[in-house]
Amino acid sequence: MLSRQVVEKLKQHETPFYFYDMDLLRQTLDSVVWAAAKYNFKIHYAIKANYDPRILQVIKEYGLGIDCASGNEVRCAIEAGFDPKSIVYAGVGKRDKEIRYAIEQGIFAINCESLQELEVIDGIAAEMGKVVDCGLRVNPDIDPKTNHCIDTGQADSKFGISYEKVLEQAEWIQSLKHVNIKGMHLHIGSQIRELHVFQYLCDKVNVITDNLVRKGFKLDFVDVGGGLGINYDMPENEPVPNFASVFAIINGNLKVGNREIHFEFGRSIVGECGELITSVLYRKDTATGRRLVIVDASMTELIRPMLYGSYHDIENLTSTAEKHEKYAIVGTACESTDVFNESVTLPKTVRGDILTIKSAGAYGMSMASRYNQHDLPGAVYSDDIK
Amino acid sequence: MLSRQVVEKLKQHETPFYFYDMDLLRQTLDSVVWAAAKYNFKIHYAIKANYDPRILQVIKEYGLGIDCASGNEVRCAIEAGFDPKSIVYAGVGKRDKEIRYAIEQGIFAINCESLQELEVIDGIAAEMGKVVDCGLRVNPDIDPKTNHCIDTGQADSKFGISYEKVLEQAEWIQSLKHVNIKGMHLHIGSQIRELHVFQYLCDKVNVITDNLVRKGFKLDFVDVGGGLGINYDMPENEPVPNFASVFAIINGNLKVGNREIHFEFGRSIVGECGELITSVLYRKDTATGRRLVIVDASMTELIRPMLYGSYHDIENLTSTAEKHEKYAIVGTACESTDVFNESVTLPKTVRGDILTIKSAGAYGMSMASRYNQHDLPGAVYSDDIK
Repeated sequence: MLSRQVVEKLKQHETPFYFYDMDLLRQTLDSVVWAAAKYNFKIHYAIKANYDPRILQVIKEYGLGIDCASGNEVRCAIEAGFDPKSIVYAGVGKRDKEIRYAIEQGIFAINCESLQELEVIDGIAAEMGKVVDCGLRVNPDIDPKTNHCIDTGQADSKFGISYEKVLEQAEWIQSLKHVNIKGMHLHIGSQIRELHVFQYLCDKVNVITDNLVRKGFKLDFVDVGGGLGINYDMPENEPVPNFASVFAIINGNLKVGNREIHFEFGRSIVGECGELITSVLYRKDTATGRRLVIVDASMTELIRPMLYGSYHDIENLTSTAEKHEKYAIVGTACESTDVFNESVTLPKTVRGDILTIKSAGAYGMSMASRYNQHDLPGAVYSDDIK
Repeated sequence: MLSRQVVEKLKQHETPFYFYDMDLLRQTLDSVVWAAAKYNFKIHYAIKANYDPRILQVIKEYGLGIDCASGNEVRCAIEAGFDPKSIVYAGVGKRDKEIRYAIEQGIFAINCESLQELEVIDGIAAEMGKVVDCGLRVNPDIDPKTNHCIDTGQADSKFGISYEKVLEQAEWIQSLKHVNIKGMHLHIGSQIRELHVFQYLCDKVNVITDNLVRKGFKLDFVDVGGGLGINYDMPENEPVPNFASVFAIINGNLKVGNREIHFEFGRSIVGECGELITSVLYRKDTATGRRLVIVDASMTELIRPMLYGSYHDIENLTSTAEKHEKYAIVGTACESTDVFNESVTLPKTVRGDILTIKSAGAYGMSMASRYNQHDLPGAVYSDDIK
């Protein structure tokens, strides 16, 4: 809940914009860094969640590495000053030029998602006269109990190499002269709230690593991905995700041995610190009684509700009315699907009111488009309005 | 079907990119302009479908006006050289600055979507000492038999003012001193393939206009919107939409009187002339037997399949294999939902093949994002590779 003082400051900025609570970001980073240190776990920030330069600077101060999903993301991380040796790069469709760039930069590991990709990397590395550190991204076939759109670790997912294929082709993989398999990578999905899923993950990883080691792989690291969810329903209830619990589960169930354990967290680090601030332009009712609040944001600033049916808590920051009403909050884009929430109860809301769409720090700005030639939204940082 | 010669030329460009068949665009414009001239119908191009500057220049040569959904779209049209008097501007969430700009430019009409918007426009026009030409966008409550995500004319839609409200508030609307209601606007939805829907539209419009005239409105124009669909399933079968049929239905059923009849076509003008050209990066099979073709395009270039479940025909432009196989065509984005088509039959497809994702001229580039920090796709025009 933003203080009245902050709201007054926010009123001076042209909506819509993202507001970032940099203190909450630091608290979250404090929490993850402290909890990880206990087990010497390595944390990478999944830069695809949000690559705002100010956010990246804070994340860098806390010593996290970066998890990338494209060559441009690797470039962005390096230009932001992250040590290449703290960067991992996964992605099902790496182009040759992206692979070449990642090799040139000497990143920690390219996490490979198909046998053919291994072959391509081997060929490019041969041309460059290098041996490249890689991880095998193995598809572990685990149902993460999350939205089907954002699961990635089930057997039919496009991500990773099937476990069977890795065993079958173990010898061939180890015969590649310019690829050094130094670890294994898994990622079971996103927005996981049932933490016992991480226990299944450990059980799977234990079996997989045992068998891979038996097949001759020397695994220096296991990257167990990320996927820790945030509390979209009641963000005030849980501003900082429960990293300690995930780490305890992993530490208690994973046969770690001498391996470095890596994590990739995106949403859980930046999701709660960002909110989309928007003004009410108009109120109208349809003939069917749908009570519309038309705001100046739209799917061009935050597409998750339209693309994934995702829920974001919405609050009226300025209304002091006692009477509450149910509204459909819709955006300016010329699309019927441009609805943030079909039924939200707010204090009586009128033109000029300012709403916040919460928990929008992850996959908000990074998925923005310029459809309808909308300007990209700006950003306001809590550090600047103290 | 692109000729071998064109495919050879396309191979010289870095994928992914949009390829525009400018001859097909001209044929389509020929067709719509010729068919409209017969009845003296006015045609506006819905610029939100695609605002590629080369496409806009061709559309301008054919004398079309522009239909806009934001102030930036109005600016884009004017900067491209369109006569302000040929521009209409609709949109449920017009900001004050957008309204002010449209008034300054003296566009043909601002199509108003709520009573409150009329009040706001009246106030802004008063400040500016102007009287503004407006249309009433009336919600006609018609089921367009299309994808629910892209219908706009049903009674619970966010678009337009409910017909009942317009009648109820007719006197108040006409009392506004700085708003001149000179027409009516309707739009029943998008991608309409059952043309008899346009007959229902006429029946509704006839009743609505009769009653509005009885209430004292002087309607110089009726803008019946657009919505004409294209043949996504078999684009070769129907490269040019059947404008003549729509116009014949409208002319035969609408009580036109002395009114100007306006149309707004986006998809039907540019949809078929554009295709997204992409290279195959990798082939792999999942443990469940899902045969994946990983291409270098993704939802960042064309989001319709992921956002709306839309079908686009996909063809392999380079494979000469006789054997055909079923594939899931997936993109590079780090999202499970990034699938262009779950099951498409293609000649045996391998790394390096070039695929085309057809009928992508509308709502492709204009909805592009830079998620995963992907570069925006370029464009190649048939005029340049002859």
